[in-house]
Amino acid sequence: MKPVAVDVMGADRGPAEIISGARQAAAEFAIPVALVGDPALMGDTFGLDVIAASESVDPGEDPANAVRRKKDASVVRAAEAVRDGAASAMVSAGNTGAAMASALLRIGRISGVSRPAIAAPLPVPGHRPTILLDCGANAECSPAWLVQFAQMGAVFAAQRFAIAAPRVSLLSIGEEPTKGTPLVKATHALLATEGTLPSGAVFVGNVEGRDALTGATDVIVTDGFTGNVLLKSLEGGVKVVMGALVSSLGASEEGRSALAVLSPLLAPLVAELDVDNYGGAMLLGVNGVCIISHGSSSAKAIVNAVKVAAEMVEADLIEHLRQAITPAAVSD
Amino acid sequence: MKPVAVDVMGADRGPAEIISGARQAAAEFAIPVALVGDPALMGDTFGLDVIAASESVDPGEDPANAVRRKKDASVVRAAEAVRDGAASAMVSAGNTGAAMASALLRIGRISGVSRPAIAAPLPVPGHRPTILLDCGANAECSPAWLVQFAQMGAVFAAQRFAIAAPRVSLLSIGEEPTKGTPLVKATHALLATEGTLPSGAVFVGNVEGRDALTGATDVIVTDGFTGNVLLKSLEGGVKVVMGALVSSLGASEEGRSALAVLSPLLAPLVAELDVDNYGGAMLLGVNGVCIISHGSSSAKAIVNAVKVAAEMVEADLIEHLRQAITPAAVSD
Repeated sequence: MKPVAVDVMGADRGPAEIISGARQAAAEFAIPVALVGDPALMGDTFGLDVIAASESVDPGEDPANAVRRKKDASVVRAAEAVRDGAASAMVSAGNTGAAMASALLRIGRISGVSRPAIAAPLPVPGHRPTILLDCGANAECSPAWLVQFAQMGAVFAAQRFAIAAPRVSLLSIGEEPTKGTPLVKATHALLATEGTLPSGAVFVGNVEGRDALTGATDVIVTDGFTGNVLLKSLEGGVKVVMGALVSSLGASEEGRSALAVLSPLLAPLVAELDVDNYGGAMLLGVNGVCIISHGSSSAKAIVNAVKVAAEMVEADLIEHLRQAITPAAVSD
Repeated sequence: MKPVAVDVMGADRGPAEIISGARQAAAEFAIPVALVGDPALMGDTFGLDVIAASESVDPGEDPANAVRRKKDASVVRAAEAVRDGAASAMVSAGNTGAAMASALLRIGRISGVSRPAIAAPLPVPGHRPTILLDCGANAECSPAWLVQFAQMGAVFAAQRFAIAAPRVSLLSIGEEPTKGTPLVKATHALLATEGTLPSGAVFVGNVEGRDALTGATDVIVTDGFTGNVLLKSLEGGVKVVMGALVSSLGASEEGRSALAVLSPLLAPLVAELDVDNYGGAMLLGVNGVCIISHGSSSAKAIVNAVKVAAEMVEADLIEHLRQAITPAAVSD
């Protein structure tokens, strides 16, 4: 396998954290990696392959402008390595918009795909994760785009979590097909049509926000505005509740000693809820494996991102996606 | 004060639970209440006033049809009691759509209000709640409607939680005014215009899903589709996480005894996160105080709903709302 190109620039914790994750993935799972970034800023690269790039995109920078101007940005070079066959996949924990724009402009779309979408795993306690897409690539969507998101989400869930018959659902504000916006109602009708989803996948109808963490569905399809709000509210909500819990207990001696006893018992749940264990979000619809990790990614998150990238390359995800996509009838 | 009309029909736990809550509110807080429902199905009414209504709306029933056909439905009679001045406010834990439709059709809108919106308190640990609106009354919205939601949310937050300078924010997928859908961008520009919000209220810009439970803002404005998804995902997420926590600990003897020790320490947090303590959602924009409680409301939730209803009547919420509303320029 060609190496996984890991963009080491622009992440919150700096290049050393990302390099540490890439190095662990290479050492523990024998996955070839190539670090993409400015050698002068990288520090020790532990003998890993390096693709030199003299520029980087800052977290707050306008993505489209940055990618247009900074031809030698690390995230642009990572995408070019995938395009040119020098890398099998890319992973970036830098500016999300820049990673999307680089992948879209340099790698391009899978033939027939109208718009790529960000697919993120939602951690479900006691259950495999539920895939949510779109998590923010497209603030406004058409029904035809959402249908393609459903097709891609079904394929991704099947490959990523070995689900023979993924249950695909549409996010709405009521279970009935008549509930929701015109976008949701039109999409519901399309998804309910026989033959829309790839073979094996099942459309289970509308789900509501409350179903996101219950494991009631394998794939939740929505527009990028709603998906981004849902993803961030769940991440934020879990963090607030766990934080409040720890500080409730930390306020008394009795609570502190109990917490020490409880920590090992709670460790599996904490690990289950930790998004760092799921390898980041996948940009589905571009013509190569592209993982977009949290800006705040730890080395552990990068290990998992590289591992998932390698698995999706091995599984030939892109070819499965290509076969599942119904090209949009109109050129939207 | 005229009594608070409490619709006792159509709630998940049946009339006795609702009546129990109404009775407690009357006994503990000396709030006059009137039970609205079918006397034959009510059981003991403990000497409380009764407004007889022979019909009720089922949870799954189409709201508009039900309200049109069932002239003697309890929720319709509750709204008529407010309209006619026989009641000072209404509380319903039945079909949400039917409560909205009854209030809209029988009580009517405050002059100048384009669309009423559902405003729900989000429980913020260690902090007063944040008001989220619209939580589902209007799946699709215009910028002018969202501006009115912001005006009404500011007034409600000020009256409900005694906030002198409520911080009003717009839900988006990035902090920058350029992020989000065309609806969000247009609304941002209107809210940023001097004099749009009522005196004292401050527009603090966009917030993201992750800010919902942090207390970073007092009022979050969004369309009813996104708001409903956000509210339900947070309610569901908190429930899933707390449930997983209890079952993690319940799995071992050590965990179970620790849980027994911890329960009193965690009780304040559990109470803070329990939506039953916040008295339900308020339908803002109709010409009377109308509280829409969860279908699953406990007696405690009804006590709090009646209490909030009475407080908002005493505070003359409707008059404050009337003064804050800028009538929409176009008749949308």
